[in-house]
Amino acid sequence: MADAAKTVKNAKTAITPTRAENFPEWYQQVIKATDMAENSAVRGCYIIKPYGFAIWENVQKHLGQMIKDEDVQNAYFPLLIPLSYIAKEAKHIDGFAKECAVVTHHRLSVNDKGELGPDKDSQLTEPMIIRPTSETIIGESMHNWVQSYRDLPLKLNQWCNVMRWEMRPRIFLRTAEFLWQEGHNAFATADEADADARRMLEVYRTFLEDYMAIPGIVGVKTPDERFPGAIETYTVEAFMQDGKALQACTSHNLGQTFAKSADIKFLDKDGTQKLAWTTSWGMSTRTIGGLIMMHGDDDGMIMPPRMAPYQVAILPFIKDDADTPAIMKACDEMRAALKSAGITAQIDKTEARSSDKMWAAIKKGVPVRLEIGARELAEGKVSFTRRDLGRDGKQVADIAAAPDMVKASLEQMHTDMLAGARARMDAQIHRINSLADLRAFFAAGTMGGVKIDYALIKGSAEYENIAKEFSLSTRCLPFDAPDQVIIAKSY
Amino acid sequence: MADAAKTVKNAKTAITPTRAENFPEWYQQVIKATDMAENSAVRGCYIIKPYGFAIWENVQKHLGQMIKDEDVQNAYFPLLIPLSYIAKEAKHIDGFAKECAVVTHHRLSVNDKGELGPDKDSQLTEPMIIRPTSETIIGESMHNWVQSYRDLPLKLNQWCNVMRWEMRPRIFLRTAEFLWQEGHNAFATADEADADARRMLEVYRTFLEDYMAIPGIVGVKTPDERFPGAIETYTVEAFMQDGKALQACTSHNLGQTFAKSADIKFLDKDGTQKLAWTTSWGMSTRTIGGLIMMHGDDDGMIMPPRMAPYQVAILPFIKDDADTPAIMKACDEMRAALKSAGITAQIDKTEARSSDKMWAAIKKGVPVRLEIGARELAEGKVSFTRRDLGRDGKQVADIAAAPDMVKASLEQMHTDMLAGARARMDAQIHRINSLADLRAFFAAGTMGGVKIDYALIKGSAEYENIAKEFSLSTRCLPFDAPDQVIIAKSY
Repeated sequence: MADAAKTVKNAKTAITPTRAENFPEWYQQVIKATDMAENSAVRGCYIIKPYGFAIWENVQKHLGQMIKDEDVQNAYFPLLIPLSYIAKEAKHIDGFAKECAVVTHHRLSVNDKGELGPDKDSQLTEPMIIRPTSETIIGESMHNWVQSYRDLPLKLNQWCNVMRWEMRPRIFLRTAEFLWQEGHNAFATADEADADARRMLEVYRTFLEDYMAIPGIVGVKTPDERFPGAIETYTVEAFMQDGKALQACTSHNLGQTFAKSADIKFLDKDGTQKLAWTTSWGMSTRTIGGLIMMHGDDDGMIMPPRMAPYQVAILPFIKDDADTPAIMKACDEMRAALKSAGITAQIDKTEARSSDKMWAAIKKGVPVRLEIGARELAEGKVSFTRRDLGRDGKQVADIAAAPDMVKASLEQMHTDMLAGARARMDAQIHRINSLADLRAFFAAGTMGGVKIDYALIKGSAEYENIAKEFSLSTRCLPFDAPDQVIIAKSY
Repeated sequence: MADAAKTVKNAKTAITPTRAENFPEWYQQVIKATDMAENSAVRGCYIIKPYGFAIWENVQKHLGQMIKDEDVQNAYFPLLIPLSYIAKEAKHIDGFAKECAVVTHHRLSVNDKGELGPDKDSQLTEPMIIRPTSETIIGESMHNWVQSYRDLPLKLNQWCNVMRWEMRPRIFLRTAEFLWQEGHNAFATADEADADARRMLEVYRTFLEDYMAIPGIVGVKTPDERFPGAIETYTVEAFMQDGKALQACTSHNLGQTFAKSADIKFLDKDGTQKLAWTTSWGMSTRTIGGLIMMHGDDDGMIMPPRMAPYQVAILPFIKDDADTPAIMKACDEMRAALKSAGITAQIDKTEARSSDKMWAAIKKGVPVRLEIGARELAEGKVSFTRRDLGRDGKQVADIAAAPDMVKASLEQMHTDMLAGARARMDAQIHRINSLADLRAFFAAGTMGGVKIDYALIKGSAEYENIAKEFSLSTRCLPFDAPDQVIIAKSY
């Protein structure tokens, strides 16, 4: 929140409150101002509106291709999971989440009082739950499909909705229903499974940096933070502008836990039956929440160019109605020229005032605003502004040269946003050397997280006290410093 | 089933039984042989395996773009619908389907007997149902979002899963859970809504012909076959090889039915409050079932080239192990050359015998098989075969010229498949002139459907008897002959 700290209190900003004043409320207001999503009448469930859903479509497109490039095949498994599958899994795994939507009837009927309700005669012999994740049901298929070492590796992925009955839902970040992709791979050996879990994490890290401009700390979870049943959980921990960590994705080495509960066995080359080794890995719509808290400012959202629903807002600035046809024609031509250059653009065709058009594009975080008015047309020029350079930084281009210049600007903007985010993250992680310093750091309300020798906190009752007092958790042991641990507040 | 009729009984075919012997069982066996989908442990729910899901991804890609080109925006609405929404809708609409999955609890717990089950303390105050379709919940959002005529038209679409508790499920054709897209548009006037419902039907017709090579009869449903609440339901009725009709998609003019129940009002230009007019339109995974029954033959599936998971099967034919490196190198190069030409290809790298590789590709319906062996390499040639030309029709091409020749073959194959399907359909629809002929047609077990003057069957008790006796229904009044009606058995 280095930028936010500079903001003079009560200065005019497009979003009220500012990040410094009230970060959680600022987050809600940005979602409202951008029109990305809103509450629904269903507790904990949200409506993802077109401007928010377009971001998810970009995740599906780009991350989807990267997953396919890893020779993973997309498929689709049932939404409902029989209770017996969960019971079987529960035997193997402590800490299984039991807050879930339970389906018990298959018909509605009108009762004696004339009220519509579940029909008593339609009660299911076996209740089913809406998938909170699909290890059990995909494990059942792997049990059927895997016979021999020739059937391995088996790499599957699905893009779908899942549901967990969250007690304190928060839009994008923690919702009852959410969208995600869940990958489920099976291997013949322990080494292959661990290498796969790490490789898929690297796919996520690359996607987060190259598309979302989100840097993070890449590492492994401490045992208490692992996915139930996993032998290792790998994560990318991103630091939001308020200093809290957000787990942007996870990749699990599940060892043989799920292979045991689903009985995934294969005949190996040596003629013996062996249990397979599995992994699972996922990224969800919660990452859109991270995108907002990573990149937004006090005027609204700033979209990283490769994730933006559209990259350029073309703003017709009309002072005299007589100019309208010529200006609109120039806007259409510019949109076509940008499209030819591989740039997505939208023309603001509303009757709003020029300044309102500008502010609408600013709040939505459109990467580049491009203005076309009568004066520009007369001079054969347009002016354009990068959203991340604040309210200034306007550039002027000859109309013919604009697409190439905008393209270069978008590329530079991505690079700058990633570098800026990385610099903020580096400033947010503080190396400390004692539990006393740990307490002092959070007691002082310092923004960010700490990096401390893992040996100092492992099994320490004093650490547990501090963690409880300040709502801290271990985020990961970084791959590049595995004897240390990152500790922070988190989403 | 003109082709099937020619098949000599007990001739060797890759699929047993043949279409002529037992069409429903042939359908199941093609799905098994192609590895498109399979049963799950959840009643009425199926697993769409990678080869089947790739077809759905092609629907999402191509139909998805066509929907966007209509200025429809994608969004995402909650899976669960509160019972009160359904009750409100039920008041307005007769015939509302009540077979649906009802969620009544939000937690699992272990009871006194040590069994896992719904936690009694977690019963929901208001039960919810898993969406069978989303008119009610999207209507609620339209109520919130539409204030003025400036907010119209409002055009929304979502790709999602829905659930209906089907009593007699059948893979792809009638399943408890299925995937679809559902579009929901709102307009200021009745005329715009009707034009929209017709335009979206035309989008479907174009998609079905241009991508799936499925021709159909385009028309409007009779009142008894309308979607509950619709004032008109438009449809494309495709005729399968066994002469039964399959509704490939529907587009509904909902009039003000849902605008009334959800209270979707707007302030019009004239200063008065008016109710909006809405449409909805959908295509689902059931269309994949139609693709199989339209195009498969007694050797398996025949994929229309634009919907195929991959268009070319590259088959390395290895007689001498010493040739393996050179042949595999040539296969990799061919795959790259095809990719450059915009053609998707997969190399069969299994250790199967050449004839087994060929039959695997035939059963899966890969549009073109391309063989590369030592002799071909020595001669600088490859041979390739179109799947739809039966077991013959092999062409030989210089290696460098192969991609262009394959591309032309794929284009021609689409054209031929569509023309063939249309000729079959035309032969399946018989113009008749009396109820006596109607009875005679179906009593004789004639394959296909009939076209008869609508006035002859409208309100006719005799027609109702015939329809009941032979399980017939009216499929549509064709746009090009609106005083006539198509009658057939159907899926």
